[in-house]
Amino acid sequence: MQKIDGRTVSQSVRDDLAEQVRVLTGKGLRAPHLAAILVGNDGGSETYVAAKVKDCEEIGFGSTLKRLPQTIQEDDLLFEIHQLNQDLSVDGIIVQLPLPPHISPGKVINAIDPSKDVDGFHPQNVGKMVEGLATFLPATPFGILMLLEYYRIETKGKHAVVIGRSAIVGTPVSILLSRNRYPGNCTVTLCHSATPNIQALCLQADIIIAAIGKPGFVKADMVKEGAVVIDVGTTRVPDPTKKSGFSLRGDVDFASVAPKTSFITPVPGGVGPMTRAALMKNTYLAYLGRENR
Amino acid sequence: MQKIDGRTVSQSVRDDLAEQVRVLTGKGLRAPHLAAILVGNDGGSETYVAAKVKDCEEIGFGSTLKRLPQTIQEDDLLFEIHQLNQDLSVDGIIVQLPLPPHISPGKVINAIDPSKDVDGFHPQNVGKMVEGLATFLPATPFGILMLLEYYRIETKGKHAVVIGRSAIVGTPVSILLSRNRYPGNCTVTLCHSATPNIQALCLQADIIIAAIGKPGFVKADMVKEGAVVIDVGTTRVPDPTKKSGFSLRGDVDFASVAPKTSFITPVPGGVGPMTRAALMKNTYLAYLGRENR
Repeated sequence: MQKIDGRTVSQSVRDDLAEQVRVLTGKGLRAPHLAAILVGNDGGSETYVAAKVKDCEEIGFGSTLKRLPQTIQEDDLLFEIHQLNQDLSVDGIIVQLPLPPHISPGKVINAIDPSKDVDGFHPQNVGKMVEGLATFLPATPFGILMLLEYYRIETKGKHAVVIGRSAIVGTPVSILLSRNRYPGNCTVTLCHSATPNIQALCLQADIIIAAIGKPGFVKADMVKEGAVVIDVGTTRVPDPTKKSGFSLRGDVDFASVAPKTSFITPVPGGVGPMTRAALMKNTYLAYLGRENR
Repeated sequence: MQKIDGRTVSQSVRDDLAEQVRVLTGKGLRAPHLAAILVGNDGGSETYVAAKVKDCEEIGFGSTLKRLPQTIQEDDLLFEIHQLNQDLSVDGIIVQLPLPPHISPGKVINAIDPSKDVDGFHPQNVGKMVEGLATFLPATPFGILMLLEYYRIETKGKHAVVIGRSAIVGTPVSILLSRNRYPGNCTVTLCHSATPNIQALCLQADIIIAAIGKPGFVKADMVKEGAVVIDVGTTRVPDPTKKSGFSLRGDVDFASVAPKTSFITPVPGGVGPMTRAALMKNTYLAYLGRENR
């Protein structure tokens, strides 16, 4: 069993990007720039956005954090996005989710220029992904692909079972692993809440991607000897021993499952850091696309 | 075993549309209008486009067939599309594939206004499908959903095995059957040329969608008793007994497979007529979208 070290892989991706920035700025070019919009003061969102801004600083990217009040009208938020779309010094735009209930996330995502949509959520970019065209891959699935690649995990002809059909993880990762390239060429089974026999299906899997948001859902008796297990779950559970009062738990019961696997991601320290690295990579790609246009 | 009668279902869809057109024109409104572009003189393409124009006439839709020479430059074709995009009397635009090798099908599909993309091939529409938003579904997968609906075939919790990952059939049908609605809520396994054990997977399937383009690929020993089998294959094989010199063969060995199934589509007369009906339905939806805008 090898524990996949997402922190190390993430650091390696970010180190590469930092090196690229040094080359660019050494030539007198400007650095890539990410603009983040944060609506309201949700604690989780504050933490996530702060981490993204910090990643930018560490790599040498420029960043803008636009804070907008919880009470902002949808039209005013759309206007802010249009301004960032027009701004030639901004390469990537993200709007931290969730948004207040009076604002449609679909409308907001649609308003972002697809060429600056570094979260990879715009339908145009999702469609290009399905059709196998160059695009911005959604950050978490992209991060998973980078992990498989880094550890040179064989995927061709393998049976991948994906648990969870969310639009931002389960569904796109199932599409990406099916594609005719590496990492990919898997036979993919997509399971979800309406699947009656998840255990039997998981037992057939060479690769399990758990993205269901139920702590400890995948147990040892669901995993084939030698399987690769990727845990996307990050549920906050109360933990009085932590300063924050909570700890993160994955969808996989790590202690019992790990000994059966060939590779497994821990939580925290597995997929989570890769999502952030993937966002930085997409921002860099957006910069190159604009510079090359 | 019940043979699914695609011709009857298709006729029923087209009869409904014809009735809608009578209502619309009775109110003094114009009828929906489909514009088809045909490049060159490929025999198969001529036949397909002629059938679509005939369907329009039968339903009462307006139609325009724009014939362009095989030697047309890509830019000139894109200009023709832009003109149709601008034309307020045109609701749906299709460009018959395949195109000559000097023209990029991706560029051509991208040039069609997504709100007139009644083939459902534009990345924007594919992405909306993945995200579960209202859009134009690609015609063949949409036709398959209509067949399942017409015969009230239960899909929730069923295991669907899709053979073939093409961008126009296999991949989208796998996405659609996974979605949280009817027809859908299937556990979906997507198989393809890199899948080593298609037979074992098919034997688990409650629903098999064969879209691989290999005549007679699915044999009786791959099908579970009582399965639903949908055959998307339409390969032309030489047949001296036919006036045309060929007959159409599906991906399923119908004679041996049919007795084991609960429902099965024949070839011809199964999915094929539904693809045409789905195109007409999308054209009608495009008309409504434009009229409602």
